[in-house]
Amino acid sequence: MNRPVPKITTGALPASRKVYASGTLHELRVPMREISVTDEAPLTVYDSSGPYTDPAATIDIAKGLPEVRGGWLQTRGEVEAYEGRAVTSADNGFAEGARLTPPFPAARDTLRATGDRAVTQLAYARAGIVTPEMEFVAIRENEGRAKAYSRDGDPMGANLPDLVTPEFVRDEIAAGRAIIPANINHRELEPMIIGRNFLVKINANIGNSAVTSSMEEEVEKMVWAIRWGADTVMDLSTGRNIHNIRDWILRNSPVPIGTVPLYQALEKVNGIAEDLTWEIYRDTLIEQAEQGVDYFTIHAGVRLHMIPMTAKRVTGIVSRGGSIMAKWCLHHHRESFLYEHFDEICDICRRYDVSFSLGDGLRPGSIADANDEAQFAELRTLGELTKIAWAKDCQVMIEGPGHVPMHKIKANMDEQLKHCHEAPFYTLGPLTTDIAPGYDHITSAIGAAMIGWFGTAMLCYVTPKEHLGLPDRDDVKTGVITYKLASHAADLAKGHPGAQARDDAISRARFDFRWEDQFNLGLDPDTAREMHDETMPKEAHKLAHFCSMCGPKFCSMKISHDIRAEAEKREGMAKMAEKYRDGGDLYMPADTVEEPAE
Amino acid sequence: MNRPVPKITTGALPASRKVYASGTLHELRVPMREISVTDEAPLTVYDSSGPYTDPAATIDIAKGLPEVRGGWLQTRGEVEAYEGRAVTSADNGFAEGARLTPPFPAARDTLRATGDRAVTQLAYARAGIVTPEMEFVAIRENEGRAKAYSRDGDPMGANLPDLVTPEFVRDEIAAGRAIIPANINHRELEPMIIGRNFLVKINANIGNSAVTSSMEEEVEKMVWAIRWGADTVMDLSTGRNIHNIRDWILRNSPVPIGTVPLYQALEKVNGIAEDLTWEIYRDTLIEQAEQGVDYFTIHAGVRLHMIPMTAKRVTGIVSRGGSIMAKWCLHHHRESFLYEHFDEICDICRRYDVSFSLGDGLRPGSIADANDEAQFAELRTLGELTKIAWAKDCQVMIEGPGHVPMHKIKANMDEQLKHCHEAPFYTLGPLTTDIAPGYDHITSAIGAAMIGWFGTAMLCYVTPKEHLGLPDRDDVKTGVITYKLASHAADLAKGHPGAQARDDAISRARFDFRWEDQFNLGLDPDTAREMHDETMPKEAHKLAHFCSMCGPKFCSMKISHDIRAEAEKREGMAKMAEKYRDGGDLYMPADTVEEPAE
Repeated sequence: MNRPVPKITTGALPASRKVYASGTLHELRVPMREISVTDEAPLTVYDSSGPYTDPAATIDIAKGLPEVRGGWLQTRGEVEAYEGRAVTSADNGFAEGARLTPPFPAARDTLRATGDRAVTQLAYARAGIVTPEMEFVAIRENEGRAKAYSRDGDPMGANLPDLVTPEFVRDEIAAGRAIIPANINHRELEPMIIGRNFLVKINANIGNSAVTSSMEEEVEKMVWAIRWGADTVMDLSTGRNIHNIRDWILRNSPVPIGTVPLYQALEKVNGIAEDLTWEIYRDTLIEQAEQGVDYFTIHAGVRLHMIPMTAKRVTGIVSRGGSIMAKWCLHHHRESFLYEHFDEICDICRRYDVSFSLGDGLRPGSIADANDEAQFAELRTLGELTKIAWAKDCQVMIEGPGHVPMHKIKANMDEQLKHCHEAPFYTLGPLTTDIAPGYDHITSAIGAAMIGWFGTAMLCYVTPKEHLGLPDRDDVKTGVITYKLASHAADLAKGHPGAQARDDAISRARFDFRWEDQFNLGLDPDTAREMHDETMPKEAHKLAHFCSMCGPKFCSMKISHDIRAEAEKREGMAKMAEKYRDGGDLYMPADTVEEPAE
Repeated sequence: MNRPVPKITTGALPASRKVYASGTLHELRVPMREISVTDEAPLTVYDSSGPYTDPAATIDIAKGLPEVRGGWLQTRGEVEAYEGRAVTSADNGFAEGARLTPPFPAARDTLRATGDRAVTQLAYARAGIVTPEMEFVAIRENEGRAKAYSRDGDPMGANLPDLVTPEFVRDEIAAGRAIIPANINHRELEPMIIGRNFLVKINANIGNSAVTSSMEEEVEKMVWAIRWGADTVMDLSTGRNIHNIRDWILRNSPVPIGTVPLYQALEKVNGIAEDLTWEIYRDTLIEQAEQGVDYFTIHAGVRLHMIPMTAKRVTGIVSRGGSIMAKWCLHHHRESFLYEHFDEICDICRRYDVSFSLGDGLRPGSIADANDEAQFAELRTLGELTKIAWAKDCQVMIEGPGHVPMHKIKANMDEQLKHCHEAPFYTLGPLTTDIAPGYDHITSAIGAAMIGWFGTAMLCYVTPKEHLGLPDRDDVKTGVITYKLASHAADLAKGHPGAQARDDAISRARFDFRWEDQFNLGLDPDTAREMHDETMPKEAHKLAHFCSMCGPKFCSMKISHDIRAEAEKREGMAKMAEKYRDGGDLYMPADTVEEPAE
């Protein structure tokens, strides 16, 4: 090979070990992460990081991950191996020599459905079949719990059972309310579910651009993103070597990989949008489906008549795919080829179980454009396309905005529920103000947490680099942690029956000055520890009943402990509560206080 | 002097100049910041940064800022200069020699009200008087606008006029719905207003602890915090030299300074909470009022009978002041001396116009403790104390939580409105989950934006260091920018008539690839520029119609411009809209699609 194999980050997270839960219906083992906690039972949490955090796993990026699903597909049948399409120079943007990323070295079977059947999770769910993927995600969603931890929230119409069963999963998928993105050619996948009635998920975007980045960087970004909690990863590469980069990513990804096939199609016509054709696009879909891409973002809702609706917008069309399609439509004076050939796209997707992520090409890219005519016209079309896709047994989720001020966020959820038949919603933020470039992970975390609470199933992250440049590895981590906290805030608000366990564990640790436990239970133990150690670095400090915020005399938690000890010494707080409650009175006689006029 | 004068950050922000608007009723000039924008009118925005960003100002930290309000107080009269209380060694925590921070070198008059009158903005407002401070803030709130920029929001019961008038300000203060924290001994102050019907404000916390920091660092933190947008600053010092550090800060602060007098009182009794006495506390109030502290956080709502309500909490009492008072009460088996002597505290505050910030000593410090009995018992007491303070013409705001999951946030606003007679609400976040130490500026920005939308008047910032250590200068900036974006998101959602001007200006700049304008209009131009330049550093890149996120072929905004050009060439988008709307049809005949059962 021309180049060294990418260096990727491995090793367990602090105080954590990989544990596996077994299935009862199928042969499977579901990974979770167990965090040790001093003097308490360990806390088991959801784990998207794959074998990279399992010290028992042998990692070889040039070989790829084990085929978790290989046996399942063999047992299920209904698929055949075949000679896939040959890779062309155009697939890699005509890169050559030292500029061509080496192809992934280990060969895998290319599968497709036999005959004209659908091999989608939706088809199986409707047939009443509980697949191994469905059982896997059911176990995964329960995070090792035997019952609900707590029930305290406002689910806003969501239905969150105490424990998820495989049958519940099947029913949700059959109803179209959830999807398991799982291409039959992505057998390294550890399946996951996206739906309003499950844990809120997050997506991290990676991918090169013409200006920067490489395969090595992108594979590490994927591994890094899932280490910190990304549930899916989209490869949004727009530069050279799109095909080969994607192979390296897919063969090494335990999470679903999404793409926007239009980008590669555009590269094949040298960036001239007007030269796109249905044939080139179709070929790209098959190319990517054969590699194992789990979901395609397809901007089939950007229709010719909607484009003029964007004329008065402050920021026009901010979706890459949306703008490309709009350019094509206007130039050719024709309806979108994605819209016209949507049936045929479905026929491809159902053979491999590639899920649709119906793109929001007309999403608002500024506060001024939020909830405008163009945006909702497209949303209604996405609802129509959802029904067409479902009729072909294709799994579907719906993409959403964007830039939306807080008071307009609920309407987005309401409109999506109304027009898209409860298909899962997958938003980008939304950003709640435009005025903070450099901080858009935060402007959007606000909107994302809120819309996640209202029912959005997956939140696409935004990094600090939004609007400014391609995110690097540090930006990826910041974006992922930010969106993990936002999705967790949403789970808490919805009253997810497991969510509060982690908040309570970390708060107990905090109150008890178990500093290492506090760090280890947090979403980013390394950063928390570093920040603490900036001012209190010694080992002995980890036993201190204070930190540098307040020092020993002013630490409220230390004083709280003193208070409890004092109260116990005297008579116990409970008795005291009784005594003082009876005696407590406002000391000021009523007639000295002037009542304000009501 | 023993030590060098602190080095502080001066100089205009990029593309910005300081402008001043004159009063019509009084002699005053109100600072604002004017940002130049290429090919557009400059954008005028609110400016908390004081003379430090005015190149025409001479800054000498050892001399302090000019007495903006000196003439007003002289004209208004009703005050007398007197020999203030002598500074004692205890005031500085018994520091001596090289450890004693040098006193602020330039002397100022110490004023108090003559006789037993009240010289508060509330007293004047009730008497029908529009003070210079009221006119100042009215002009300030309008940010140079002549009329409303837009009206699009959900004010959630707030009353936001198109333009703020001095009379509107007077009425709001008289009703107790707003306060202008403005001690007559803080004459360097550029007055500002805190109230639900005005721009949402933010507070930054500074101050040393026993473990770390110094006067030089703290003065620079104050200057740095207001540069980035802090509307008030609290000096929460708990180490040595509290008195002298505060002097340096006050004499150089154009924004209101808040404190928690209990901290210094505790230092005077060597950190032994049980040794606190009303006399020591009273003396500390006078000491700080004479220096010019604009608002006191006073935890008079932590009453003896409430303390046992915290026994079952996961994180006990997390407020420093609240825990100190709880310890004192339990030890002495007595009602809080703050509560019992509240009348006398009012008598002191009304002589200097120190505003109350009624402390939330029993706020929840974890998700588990949110909205519990202790928290709301205290809130109801704060409502009672508000009426007592108002009866003495003292200005009041109410502090709030804390850690609150999203679904419980609205109830906090509702309860506060119900029990506290519309006094302004001033919350700390709230944090919407506990699980992200290192990122609590973000977990809390979510809650802060929401509760700001619901009616909270001021948001106390949280930095990345929360729970881990004392914030440094970088943390202060991150916290301020985060809270500026959150307060602005709240203003937008409320439909503040001026808010969207900045979002629209920056979005126009973004769409037009006016990179410098985009940076300059953002809350943190330096960081935005640096991030952009990481991958595209050349001057020529500032004219590029793309950035490294997408590169030249994939930039959606570039393509949007191409689309508009193409459409104009043909016939104009508007005509096109008409034509296509009539022709657009779902291409699939209805009978091929199976309608889902409703």
